[in-house]
Amino acid sequence: MTITGPQGFRAAGVAAGIKASGALDFTLVVNDGPLDVAAGVFTRNVIKAAPVLWSQEVLKQRRLKAVVLNSGGANAATGPGGFQDTHATAEKVAEVLGAGAIEVAVCSTGLIGERLPMDAVLSGVDTAAKALEASAGASLNAATGVMTTDSKPKQAFAKHEDGWSVGGFAKGAGMLAPNLATMLSVLTTDAVVDPEVLDRALRAATGITYDRLDVDGGTSTNDTVLVLASGASGVEPSEAALTETLTAVALDLVLQLRADSEGATKDVDVVVKGAVTEADAVAVARTVAEDNLVKTALFGSDPNWGRIAMALGRAQATIDAEQVAIAINGVTLFAHGTTAEDRSAADLSGRAIEIVIDLGVGDHTATVYTTDLSHGYVEENSAYSS
Amino acid sequence: MTITGPQGFRAAGVAAGIKASGALDFTLVVNDGPLDVAAGVFTRNVIKAAPVLWSQEVLKQRRLKAVVLNSGGANAATGPGGFQDTHATAEKVAEVLGAGAIEVAVCSTGLIGERLPMDAVLSGVDTAAKALEASAGASLNAATGVMTTDSKPKQAFAKHEDGWSVGGFAKGAGMLAPNLATMLSVLTTDAVVDPEVLDRALRAATGITYDRLDVDGGTSTNDTVLVLASGASGVEPSEAALTETLTAVALDLVLQLRADSEGATKDVDVVVKGAVTEADAVAVARTVAEDNLVKTALFGSDPNWGRIAMALGRAQATIDAEQVAIAINGVTLFAHGTTAEDRSAADLSGRAIEIVIDLGVGDHTATVYTTDLSHGYVEENSAYSS
Repeated sequence: MTITGPQGFRAAGVAAGIKASGALDFTLVVNDGPLDVAAGVFTRNVIKAAPVLWSQEVLKQRRLKAVVLNSGGANAATGPGGFQDTHATAEKVAEVLGAGAIEVAVCSTGLIGERLPMDAVLSGVDTAAKALEASAGASLNAATGVMTTDSKPKQAFAKHEDGWSVGGFAKGAGMLAPNLATMLSVLTTDAVVDPEVLDRALRAATGITYDRLDVDGGTSTNDTVLVLASGASGVEPSEAALTETLTAVALDLVLQLRADSEGATKDVDVVVKGAVTEADAVAVARTVAEDNLVKTALFGSDPNWGRIAMALGRAQATIDAEQVAIAINGVTLFAHGTTAEDRSAADLSGRAIEIVIDLGVGDHTATVYTTDLSHGYVEENSAYSS
Repeated sequence: MTITGPQGFRAAGVAAGIKASGALDFTLVVNDGPLDVAAGVFTRNVIKAAPVLWSQEVLKQRRLKAVVLNSGGANAATGPGGFQDTHATAEKVAEVLGAGAIEVAVCSTGLIGERLPMDAVLSGVDTAAKALEASAGASLNAATGVMTTDSKPKQAFAKHEDGWSVGGFAKGAGMLAPNLATMLSVLTTDAVVDPEVLDRALRAATGITYDRLDVDGGTSTNDTVLVLASGASGVEPSEAALTETLTAVALDLVLQLRADSEGATKDVDVVVKGAVTEADAVAVARTVAEDNLVKTALFGSDPNWGRIAMALGRAQATIDAEQVAIAINGVTLFAHGTTAEDRSAADLSGRAIEIVIDLGVGDHTATVYTTDLSHGYVEENSAYSS
């Protein structure tokens, strides 16, 4: 049990017929309370899918009874009709659960620019409501129903020693998938928590996990992370403990997303230390993580620090070229403006690669989680969309 | 004749033995006057190669007698010793030409982090000085001596009806080449021109040509564009005419660089219209041009406007999703927040692709010149550097 690991939740994943393949494509997560506290973070893309526009409105109340999610279609760039489809889906879920539509968040993932088959979606609500369970099988089905080109479902769970827990699932990674946008994640907790605290804890957790997974710089029209709190454990943790546990579950999911990225052959941590500000550290790490010349070198298991130096030198951050040190897998290859150890000393043959960049001008640190750029990535993302 | 097309210039390209292959690797361009006016623009990367640091200082005087360029080594991240090598090269050229070192700019391109073989460089100066000519063959050799992974030399020339002309060569494209950084270009003109005017004209020309060639977002440690004016035509053009002709020659070279980009199978113009500011137009065009999901779709000849919408929506610019229109090769695929013509109407089978994004919120326009992201790019850039 993961999404239903915390007490007070039921979930289901069913085949609603949205995907032509007949695979699971429809997920429902229900909070049975006693609390119905919720928080969400959404894509910063200016072009937002209909379900994002809906769920952002719904979350202003910081209460959710349920989340309904579909794969097989992003319902993005679908105009007013697409928004009506999202609204009708929430209404249907509310009707079946005896709740209000305003208590139902909606998430979609799949091809941009296509309307959803609403007959399948609405009958899917009935099918999913009947399948709701607090079981490991239901959790797995729920995590599977949101998959697009993911090769496996991603689930995580952590139990705090004080008797409350956090669970959840995730799918995708940035705009990794061909035409199939989106990173979606739903987290649950049975902690007793104030809405303001849950919101802050979620933002703190996502800020250093989901926000720092960067495979190709993509920011989909549909990205959504939701957390629902049932209060069923009866335990009210400190904000710090809640944030820490949410962060641990989120990071677990993020590393699963990275490992399953299309075409990735390397799991790459870009760690920046010694920055003047955290924003500087993130800017440098992100510029290096997104650089195609760095990423292709990593695919070739090549400790090409010259490309890392080039990439960090174009980041928007305070950098003194003489103070920068670059290490790969523990071997310092560049320092004091020139070469340090010979590049042959750095072994990049394994899947895990750690690049540590010490800017040497401050005390701030950040890590961005990325991958290499491989033939597999090009192959999977250049296939024709229709 | 191109670099020596304008009157008052001689050039040479020789094999100095820097490259193990024995290929041409050393170029000298000399301005015989009567004027020695010059201007330059350099990489904005914080980590600058030794020749960039030297040439930036030299150009403060806005006078140049000669430019010496080598391939086979970037002389970047080489510390104080690397700077001494650049200085020694300029001194040697000055000695041979009977000039001052402060009148000699230096450019290097090749692997980052390696010192240059100075015996070869210094003897190359002698060889090149003896080979100086104002001939088509010397121009071609000069354009060839700066090549790294370029498959062919890039030269351009334009003669103004008033009797003056602009010529030049270029190599590379951003950080395209494996380990072999850098875009270098030298332009010449026989116009009579004031140093301030030449500087403004060069910045205006490069701002909409070299600065808008974006194959992979790379900004090398060595990027340099220099222009030398001999005044030998005796004609002083208007600033507008000079800017226009410099721009035409620069754009010619930029499109040659794009066409020869490693692995590129598509020449892609990203045109942004209707932006609130020119900076907004550039930001949107650049974000789309650098997006790997857009670039892989183009490699697949896939008119996947959903990825273009995703990419532009994450640009730092004023965007109203309802006002945006996206057209590919003349077919409008997205408008008014939803799909327009069917994607099958857009034919991307040819090499030339034009993406036109109308933001619909202002009057400013910009074009960024890019390519697709192909298996060839990954192949050439993932080869081990040693």
